[in-house]
Amino acid sequence: MNILLDVMGGDNAPDEIIKGAIEGINNLDSSTYITMIGKEDIIKQKISEIYKKDLSEITDRVKIKNATEVITNHEAPTEALKTKLDSSMNVAFEMLKSGEGDCFISAGSTGALMAGGLLKVGRIKGVDRPALCPMLPTIDGKGFLLLDAGANTNCKPINLLQFAQMGSIYMQKACGVNNPSVGLLNIGSEEEKGNVLTKESFPLIKADEKINFYGNIEGRDMFSGDVDVVVADGFTGNIALKTTEGIGLALGKMLKEELTSSLFRKIGAGILSASGALTSFKKRIDYSEYGGALLLGIEKPIVKCHGSGKEKDVKIVLKQAENYVKGGVVESIKESITKNK
Amino acid sequence: MNILLDVMGGDNAPDEIIKGAIEGINNLDSSTYITMIGKEDIIKQKISEIYKKDLSEITDRVKIKNATEVITNHEAPTEALKTKLDSSMNVAFEMLKSGEGDCFISAGSTGALMAGGLLKVGRIKGVDRPALCPMLPTIDGKGFLLLDAGANTNCKPINLLQFAQMGSIYMQKACGVNNPSVGLLNIGSEEEKGNVLTKESFPLIKADEKINFYGNIEGRDMFSGDVDVVVADGFTGNIALKTTEGIGLALGKMLKEELTSSLFRKIGAGILSASGALTSFKKRIDYSEYGGALLLGIEKPIVKCHGSGKEKDVKIVLKQAENYVKGGVVESIKESITKNK
Repeated sequence: MNILLDVMGGDNAPDEIIKGAIEGINNLDSSTYITMIGKEDIIKQKISEIYKKDLSEITDRVKIKNATEVITNHEAPTEALKTKLDSSMNVAFEMLKSGEGDCFISAGSTGALMAGGLLKVGRIKGVDRPALCPMLPTIDGKGFLLLDAGANTNCKPINLLQFAQMGSIYMQKACGVNNPSVGLLNIGSEEEKGNVLTKESFPLIKADEKINFYGNIEGRDMFSGDVDVVVADGFTGNIALKTTEGIGLALGKMLKEELTSSLFRKIGAGILSASGALTSFKKRIDYSEYGGALLLGIEKPIVKCHGSGKEKDVKIVLKQAENYVKGGVVESIKESITKNK
Repeated sequence: MNILLDVMGGDNAPDEIIKGAIEGINNLDSSTYITMIGKEDIIKQKISEIYKKDLSEITDRVKIKNATEVITNHEAPTEALKTKLDSSMNVAFEMLKSGEGDCFISAGSTGALMAGGLLKVGRIKGVDRPALCPMLPTIDGKGFLLLDAGANTNCKPINLLQFAQMGSIYMQKACGVNNPSVGLLNIGSEEEKGNVLTKESFPLIKADEKINFYGNIEGRDMFSGDVDVVVADGFTGNIALKTTEGIGLALGKMLKEELTSSLFRKIGAGILSASGALTSFKKRIDYSEYGGALLLGIEKPIVKCHGSGKEKDVKIVLKQAENYVKGGVVESIKESITKNK
């Protein structure tokens, strides 16, 4: 397997992405390779700075593919993909399409990644709308897959059914979850609750015998670990995702303020810190620990690593992408998706 | 002013509600009275158990109005309001309507409170859809008003404009916020982002010169304190509210687990606890500290106290309701709401 890795995208590119690849390769199967895509001279220079060695002296399973341009977060995605033909993203999409690569990871522009996936690599036949699917944390540490988290602002019931199918297949095939439980994000648990979209989607999802349908799930119950997949239209899913991020950040900030506002508190916090409690807490609520956001419904596996992703995050996403390919998720989706009429 | 208080609704009724009234009356203006509505014999018995005195010996500003029935959370709201004519809620609505009461507080069924407000007390003329409006916490402790949090699942742009107007008026008149900043909950900050509803609502709200319009606000930025009011349709607002609750509960649980998983950690947590850090943290994230959820757009002020509300919460909501009346919020809404054509 050849994993394509955009080393030019993200806040900590290229250093942390390069380190993630080189440190992460040994966590992957011995038949898996990584191709780092980006400005070759810069990549080589960084490796020599960080490791005081050439890449070939470190590993023969990480390679470099030169790409002279970079698409930034500030560019209009479709326009950038059209004009920056030698950007790391464009080169990756071409390699995916031609079969030179089996999957693609980038911490760069989510918009460009989605647009490129859709326009250059293409949808799986029958999938109406590919979805953006981050993993979010749960109390029990299993996490759940949220889809769609923002790729499709306006959705139809068939889209939500397909999200349920794709999410279920991914959790089963790539994450080894047996009979994954799928919830429909809604404002009440009863079947008749919700807006027009959720009311029409509920019976569709319920009728699919391959889906272990939990029924409606409210925002407050998502984090319990009761469901493995939460389905929503992209607008609602994005609101849920961003609210989760926002309150997480706010709580972290408030906790920090409380723990450092006096010497006495600092002592208590110091003990907790030494005990690993605070690190462990941070780790449990840090959803980058659960991997990146998948694009499901595209012909080839594509995974968005967090924009602020560092070495450890890249390593996690590499493993995630490998499982995505190994699980045969794309093939399973092709076989069992309910085609839109 | 006469504040009507349903002492039969909520998980901790009637004890905590009664205590809230009796302990809270002295925080209110000397001209403010509270009428506790519920089963008179039970209320009197509880007061004698708790205070070893009769109500008249404690205060002459808290009175009792007998109501022999109770509407529970498990009943269909409209049906319950029709059949249980002598329920504490129904009696309160009749008193509100006749002018015997100036506002109404209940920790009982939100559905029945909204249905009764709408059907028995009535909308303010020109307000298309009254909204449910909880206060949510912000890092800086000011909090923000979220509306609609679930009263109206499907909304039109005029509804969102009216939510913006009502929220702005409330924050100004009842909370003394000068020129409150109003954000539109959306999945991106740019004007052209969002679904059909937010795209159509944006220019409407922007065009209202009385509104200090912040523009779109994403879920992750709501808790910063940058905006005083966040406007959304009831479906989206409810998802944001419940997600906030859910992640708050999950983080609290995880933090507790981390702080108590070893003796060493318990010592650290003990010091923090003694220093007040954990209590202070809990208080900052506990949004009942910010008051109950208002019903805005109803002819009389109605406030929903949290179902799990205790004495302290009732006291906070009493003050909030008094400010709601004193601020002349209903009158201001009547004067300046944009009428639906």
